[in-house]
Amino acid sequence: MAASTKKQRPTPEARSRAILETAARLICDKGYAATGIQEIAEACDLTKAGLYHYVQSKENLLLEIMSYGMDLFEEQVLSQVEGIEDPVERLKACMAKNIRLVTRGWSKEVTIILHEHATLHGAAARKINARKKRYVRFLEDSFREAVEKGLIREVDATVAAFSFLGMVLWIYKWFRPDGQLTDDQVANGMIDLLFKGLEPVRVP
Amino acid sequence: MAASTKKQRPTPEARSRAILETAARLICDKGYAATGIQEIAEACDLTKAGLYHYVQSKENLLLEIMSYGMDLFEEQVLSQVEGIEDPVERLKACMAKNIRLVTRGWSKEVTIILHEHATLHGAAARKINARKKRYVRFLEDSFREAVEKGLIREVDATVAAFSFLGMVLWIYKWFRPDGQLTDDQVANGMIDLLFKGLEPVRVP
Repeated sequence: MAASTKKQRPTPEARSRAILETAARLICDKGYAATGIQEIAEACDLTKAGLYHYVQSKENLLLEIMSYGMDLFEEQVLSQVEGIEDPVERLKACMAKNIRLVTRGWSKEVTIILHEHATLHGAAARKINARKKRYVRFLEDSFREAVEKGLIREVDATVAAFSFLGMVLWIYKWFRPDGQLTDDQVANGMIDLLFKGLEPVRVP
Repeated sequence: MAASTKKQRPTPEARSRAILETAARLICDKGYAATGIQEIAEACDLTKAGLYHYVQSKENLLLEIMSYGMDLFEEQVLSQVEGIEDPVERLKACMAKNIRLVTRGWSKEVTIILHEHATLHGAAARKINARKKRYVRFLEDSFREAVEKGLIREVDATVAAFSFLGMVLWIYKWFRPDGQLTDDQVANGMIDLLFKGLEPVRVP
């Protein structure tokens, strides 16, 4: 009997996580609006009523997927670089890590955050937007600090932050793992482009 | 009688254009998948059968909207700058014009092209993708030409082209006409950032 008690049924937490994973895969492939709650239930081997035991609503499911994507982002990008003293090195490390988060296939939750940017409403939208804004502020503050310390020339911190974000986040639209560029080439190329600039070649 | 014959009913072309405009507004606001063909018909004061007199299918309607958006883009951006001799000036003018196309509210067709990038399938997708690829090639060729002429330092033309596109096209996600930055400030700031680079301030 001891052996069979070890083979337990999945805990409610594990079950919830598996449902989120399945829903994220469907929404990532087809888009939120085109994915029905019935279809999510079927993919999870549940009835619609059974699915509603785990999730309150389709919008709530999207909020949970996005929250999990923001957890991933904060864990694998933001918290890894926030402690770097030099603001330029901090921004470069942040760009490299964020690009990898976008290019590696397992980050479907991150793709959903990027693509479904206007899908949530009310309190759910405010919750996710507040976490996104924290990232924008972090970038703006780092650019501002780099200017103040004379490490980069004077630029508008907001334009710089959104240029950084555009370069990095647009990647989900065009990058293919089997394409001509590796994600490391994209990361190194973009870091070089933004931080070294596009100055004329000076013949010595 | 002469006066009344002048007040004609809209031509089929004008009617088709009005339907495209209405559908584009709905799809831009709610997303393609969430917009029903019934809803489009109602907004056009037509029955569903009446709407199908003008459009073959919802997907075909999307293709027509995107084709019109690409027409707008080619007319207001690409054809305006292709003739500029200096590749750096060509790229700068292109960036300024493309940013304006994204920020001005009337370009809902352009927003739809940007957001619904994976919605079309088969021949329709190939048609739009070929026009998008033409733009990517134009940017890559211009960057390559600028490197070859020694006008900018050596960079990967593909990374540069997609960095340009990311900066410019991501704008539809965050820019608000009533925000702290005008679209001219964004355009000038991004041109400065990408083309002048981010070199350290050198104290003379």
